[in-house]
Amino acid sequence: MTKVGIGIIGGGYMGKAHAVAMSSVGAVFNTGLRPHLEMVCASRDASAERYRKAFGFSRATSDWQKLVADPKVQAVVIASPQETHREIAEAAFAAGKPVLCEKPLGASLEESAAMVAAAEASGVANMVGFNYIRTPASQFARQLVAAGEIGNITWFRGEHTEDFYADPNAPASWRTTGMANGTMGDLAPHMINAALALMGPIAKVMGTVETVHKSRPGGEVTNDDHAQVMCRFENGAMGHLFFSRIATGRKMGYAYEITGTKGAIRFDQEDQNALWLYRMDGPQAERGFRKILTGPAHPNYEPFCQGPGHGTGYQDQIIIEARDFLRAIETGKPVWPTFRDGHEVNRVVAATLASSKDETWKDISRF
Amino acid sequence: MTKVGIGIIGGGYMGKAHAVAMSSVGAVFNTGLRPHLEMVCASRDASAERYRKAFGFSRATSDWQKLVADPKVQAVVIASPQETHREIAEAAFAAGKPVLCEKPLGASLEESAAMVAAAEASGVANMVGFNYIRTPASQFARQLVAAGEIGNITWFRGEHTEDFYADPNAPASWRTTGMANGTMGDLAPHMINAALALMGPIAKVMGTVETVHKSRPGGEVTNDDHAQVMCRFENGAMGHLFFSRIATGRKMGYAYEITGTKGAIRFDQEDQNALWLYRMDGPQAERGFRKILTGPAHPNYEPFCQGPGHGTGYQDQIIIEARDFLRAIETGKPVWPTFRDGHEVNRVVAATLASSKDETWKDISRF
Amino acid sequence: MTKVGIGIIGGGYMGKAHAVAMSSVGAVFNTGLRPHLEMVCASRDASAERYRKAFGFSRATSDWQKLVADPKVQAVVIASPQETHREIAEAAFAAGKPVLCEKPLGASLEESAAMVAAAEASGVANMVGFNYIRTPASQFARQLVAAGEIGNITWFRGEHTEDFYADPNAPASWRTTGMANGTMGDLAPHMINAALALMGPIAKVMGTVETVHKSRPGGEVTNDDHAQVMCRFENGAMGHLFFSRIATGRKMGYAYEITGTKGAIRFDQEDQNALWLYRMDGPQAERGFRKILTGPAHPNYEPFCQGPGHGTGYQDQIIIEARDFLRAIETGKPVWPTFRDGHEVNRVVAATLASSKDETWKDISRF
Amino acid sequence: MTKVGIGIIGGGYMGKAHAVAMSSVGAVFNTGLRPHLEMVCASRDASAERYRKAFGFSRATSDWQKLVADPKVQAVVIASPQETHREIAEAAFAAGKPVLCEKPLGASLEESAAMVAAAEASGVANMVGFNYIRTPASQFARQLVAAGEIGNITWFRGEHTEDFYADPNAPASWRTTGMANGTMGDLAPHMINAALALMGPIAKVMGTVETVHKSRPGGEVTNDDHAQVMCRFENGAMGHLFFSRIATGRKMGYAYEITGTKGAIRFDQEDQNALWLYRMDGPQAERGFRKILTGPAHPNYEPFCQGPGHGTGYQDQIIIEARDFLRAIETGKPVWPTFRDGHEVNRVVAATLASSKDETWKDISRF
Repeated sequence: MTKVGIGIIGGGYMGKAHAVAMSSVGAVFNTGLRPHLEMVCASRDASAERYRKAFGFSRATSDWQKLVADPKVQAVVIASPQETHREIAEAAFAAGKPVLCEKPLGASLEESAAMVAAAEASGVANMVGFNYIRTPASQFARQLVAAGEIGNITWFRGEHTEDFYADPNAPASWRTTGMANGTMGDLAPHMINAALALMGPIAKVMGTVETVHKSRPGGEVTNDDHAQVMCRFENGAMGHLFFSRIATGRKMGYAYEITGTKGAIRFDQEDQNALWLYRMDGPQAERGFRKILTGPAHPNYEPFCQGPGHGTGYQDQIIIEARDFLRAIETGKPVWPTFRDGHEVNRVVAATLASSKDETWKDISRF
Repeated sequence: MTKVGIGIIGGGYMGKAHAVAMSSVGAVFNTGLRPHLEMVCASRDASAERYRKAFGFSRATSDWQKLVADPKVQAVVIASPQETHREIAEAAFAAGKPVLCEKPLGASLEESAAMVAAAEASGVANMVGFNYIRTPASQFARQLVAAGEIGNITWFRGEHTEDFYADPNAPASWRTTGMANGTMGDLAPHMINAALALMGPIAKVMGTVETVHKSRPGGEVTNDDHAQVMCRFENGAMGHLFFSRIATGRKMGYAYEITGTKGAIRFDQEDQNALWLYRMDGPQAERGFRKILTGPAHPNYEPFCQGPGHGTGYQDQIIIEARDFLRAIETGKPVWPTFRDGHEVNRVVAATLASSKDETWKDISRF
Repeated sequence: MTKVGIGIIGGGYMGKAHAVAMSSVGAVFNTGLRPHLEMVCASRDASAERYRKAFGFSRATSDWQKLVADPKVQAVVIASPQETHREIAEAAFAAGKPVLCEKPLGASLEESAAMVAAAEASGVANMVGFNYIRTPASQFARQLVAAGEIGNITWFRGEHTEDFYADPNAPASWRTTGMANGTMGDLAPHMINAALALMGPIAKVMGTVETVHKSRPGGEVTNDDHAQVMCRFENGAMGHLFFSRIATGRKMGYAYEITGTKGAIRFDQEDQNALWLYRMDGPQAERGFRKILTGPAHPNYEPFCQGPGHGTGYQDQIIIEARDFLRAIETGKPVWPTFRDGHEVNRVVAATLASSKDETWKDISRF
Repeated sequence: MTKVGIGIIGGGYMGKAHAVAMSSVGAVFNTGLRPHLEMVCASRDASAERYRKAFGFSRATSDWQKLVADPKVQAVVIASPQETHREIAEAAFAAGKPVLCEKPLGASLEESAAMVAAAEASGVANMVGFNYIRTPASQFARQLVAAGEIGNITWFRGEHTEDFYADPNAPASWRTTGMANGTMGDLAPHMINAALALMGPIAKVMGTVETVHKSRPGGEVTNDDHAQVMCRFENGAMGHLFFSRIATGRKMGYAYEITGTKGAIRFDQEDQNALWLYRMDGPQAERGFRKILTGPAHPNYEPFCQGPGHGTGYQDQIIIEARDFLRAIETGKPVWPTFRDGHEVNRVVAATLASSKDETWKDISRF
């Protein structure tokens, strides 16, 4: 059992999630490498120290460069704002250290391109934090689709919808300014990643991106509230994507339906322990979508619980992610989804934004 | 209690539905006018006679002109193929007889325009058979939206999906040829009508219409299997519509979700006795979509049953439709949805087809 | 096509349902016999006349004996209060006329025993109005269980729960007095009938019957609000039944779950067009309850609609019932559920009431 | 931040769950005490060593007495078979060490009585591992009921159903022998605990306990497959409990419904992140069960995730439990559910078994 010193940059929402995951991933998955919470970095010393105590790190800093350079920090988790991703990642790769970077990968397509270049030049492990796709249910969905269990896919519909800005009177904040913090920057990458994982590459898109509430108490809104995309996958299937932060009533609407010539699949993260499967076989009178509860028969479930239907949760996705990152560190090789996979997502985002501007279909190959 | 002689053209799927509805609508709604099943028309004498006996008509014919001209036939229901709608309707209006015409209204936009002109010139009752919108649940949804109960609408998603052609080996038939029999002709009008009823007019559309399985055992396929539409409503809301006859697993996927600034509504015809309502009020901890079972508190439910949750079904929608048609006959005035409403649906269909061809947004006002 | 003159006693909730059903059953099922609404009877002349006009009967009366004796009334539907069932049924049988009697069959076990004797002595058609069991979904459930599709049954749980008296401030009425109007008299018979239909005879019961709200505005409550029964079926399975009129939030909670050694079934009348089936076969990873939407592949669905998932409703159950009654009249033979079946239900009711009194298990054979 | 040395006896299903929980509870809840995985005990040295490595303990042993006596072990978690609970707990209390004991508390009512006596004599922290009740949803349900939000409770129905022995051909094992391993011993305690937590004490029970499959491949079955209980709560409400390990299709059927005079609650652990609430207020037309997704507004959710609807899972329940146990250690005071609470559950189990034998109601006060 080898210890690996983990440095996490950012101690908020995702920083905490990664710290917790690193604390328990070893016991859950009996990993070869065991993470040690070596150092946490936050924008100010006081908050860094607070995170250190709360999450159990050995040391704290407000200087990310110090963290990256520290010899005891053997792998870096970037959970700071998008604008900081590139510089940190490049420094970490330069220092030969594996990086797990939160989504979206960088604040623009140019940045993610540069980050991929840096990652691939370094040759060390690199991964992007698309956590939702790692549930046992969605992993099982990937297997079913890949194995042709529902035939040739003719239709994909995906959405990532939440309602934290549904109230027009919710005040402006950092979230309501900067493209990377809008719906296309913040929510869309998750579902685009899911679409690519489940369906393969997208060939072209036609999108509409919109700021519905142009001002809010406290200021103007400069990024998008919701967006929709018609798309064509390279496998020929037609698709539709919808992203929203104003989807009243939706709390974790990461949901998709996949229609094939032999069956269909439905999933909604709000009931993340169920996958709905329809098979066009058997007697007509007995056909119907079946609600499959995840259990030991599904990917990555059993380490959390031996009983089916007992359920995994949000934090468990991050633990699965941590397991994969540890594997990447151990082998020195990238593990899906890599920076390149994160960049592929950004290409779809960029094409959608361009499409929305001039109202024409955009080939992803141009981005 | 005055009898009104009903003539129905067509004795298949919808012809039967109307015959049954006319049989019981009087007892259900205690209507002023009471329908008498005077005459049924089918393409051949033998089938017409078979329908007469089965449904309880007084007389049968294979000549629709005879039916329209018959003095005892005081109102005409058109449940024959789309290509026949115009000629029959024009003859009926010329004879001063009220017409209930099945959807879609005519086989093309030109035809429905002519039919509207004939209807309005005659001044007699005219109605289109959009039955699904008449469920107590959807009527209640209309009331909620119209009363502003869920605030300003920001998003509408509707679909009409079935799977009767999901199997690529299902043989070609009359359904797989002729635009009016494809998904845009056959299924789309229902959900477009719902969108217009719930949301008001559509301003513009961007559509993709597709024939997925271009040949089937027995012949080429010349109409569409599925289609999607991005749209903008005149009220400013963004929307998406999806129609499919290859939606594996979907049996009656007439479904919509409406997102507003104060709440949201969801409905799926596969569970037609429930409407899901979310209200952005009360304590945060108690918010959630509530599953409202239709009952006497909702429109047009009580005449079918005094107990809530006991449920209405497909046939009951046609009975509600018959009640409205009787009212139209009685007052001599059109009742929603009129031929004009049916024509509005056709405009959206035509704009979508045009948009799909040159891949640009189309203003509905141009159609 | 032969006309049969129908006389209905009672014009309220169930009287109307039967009148409507008799109006359309011929067209729906293309029956050999065609009902004619000959005469309706109500307690007062004015209401009888009102029902006559509303439902389309030829004649009205306030004297049920006149109705029963009328030569044009060829079959009698009893939809009047339980206390009147016996006398009317005996008179009808004496006149050689088929009877469809609403549940419960008579106001007591003694009455139903006498009614069975009268029915069987007469040899004419006799039937009891357990409508809910006639949905396509429940009929399909019966087939699945009878065919052994879910193996040997080990457990049955049924309930009939509504909430029309859930509010303690709802005023006293005729419903809150008289055993036959309480939960055991009014609601329990439906689910006991279902249990017998799905599972076969009950061997013994242990029940608890309770009046929760002993007084209400306007008077004392002398019958039960809810009741539960542990039971053993003759096939060896264990069971539980629950009946309530104070089940807050439940509108039509006629629901059951059946557990077998090879599978399981679930049904809830609040979503009456779905049957949930679990099969213990196929890969473990794909097992789950499937939601089967009723359609033409299921019993008695297609006459209402050719499309699956389009749904039947409450009134359609009564139409199916009318079809069966017409068959019984036509053949002169009883059709399930007969008066004897209604009496079997009453035996379970009586045994439950007795069990609740002395808190011991009761063999049904003693009742 | 003070370290506390944790010793866990048992490294299987629950032993692992506690080890994982102790690894991350500090980071999740920012606890005052921080657990150190000091020692794990298993029946054999080899397995103990395997658990040590896998879960990250400092030391391993096959001698639980050594673990209990070790000065670095400051708190003991008992996750070994029921038969061992008493002796271990008594030794730990004698050594003045806090104990978290898995359910059921001991192998019999006599044992749990002795364990309560030992716990209370020692005065140190003592807790029983009823994990399911700790979900945010169930904790919120407790709050709603306690605050009278659904009025006076008239009915409670609870079940704990799984299907790991539904197949009659599943072989005999240690699970099919010994009362404590049957359904009443293994599953019932969870739901009885829930019933007591939600409703308060049970006054009396009438139960039926049954071994359905009396032999299995490999041996006779000497404990129960399923059981049902009619009960009366001290608050006057009627109740029913059902427990089964042969409930085909049920994976984690820890489910309850609570009916009150002002509302109702429903919960099913198979969708553990949703609580269904019905309120008898507002317009009749808008009433319905609402599906509330757990989030930061609910107890113990936010430490796992700031976003509502993102969901907690099985392992998170154990983490919440660990937090409470740490609190108990820190304060030196028992935390709910204490050994006494575990004993109260055992009393209901014992009364049910006795009732099943002589088929009479049993007052809990006699046990």
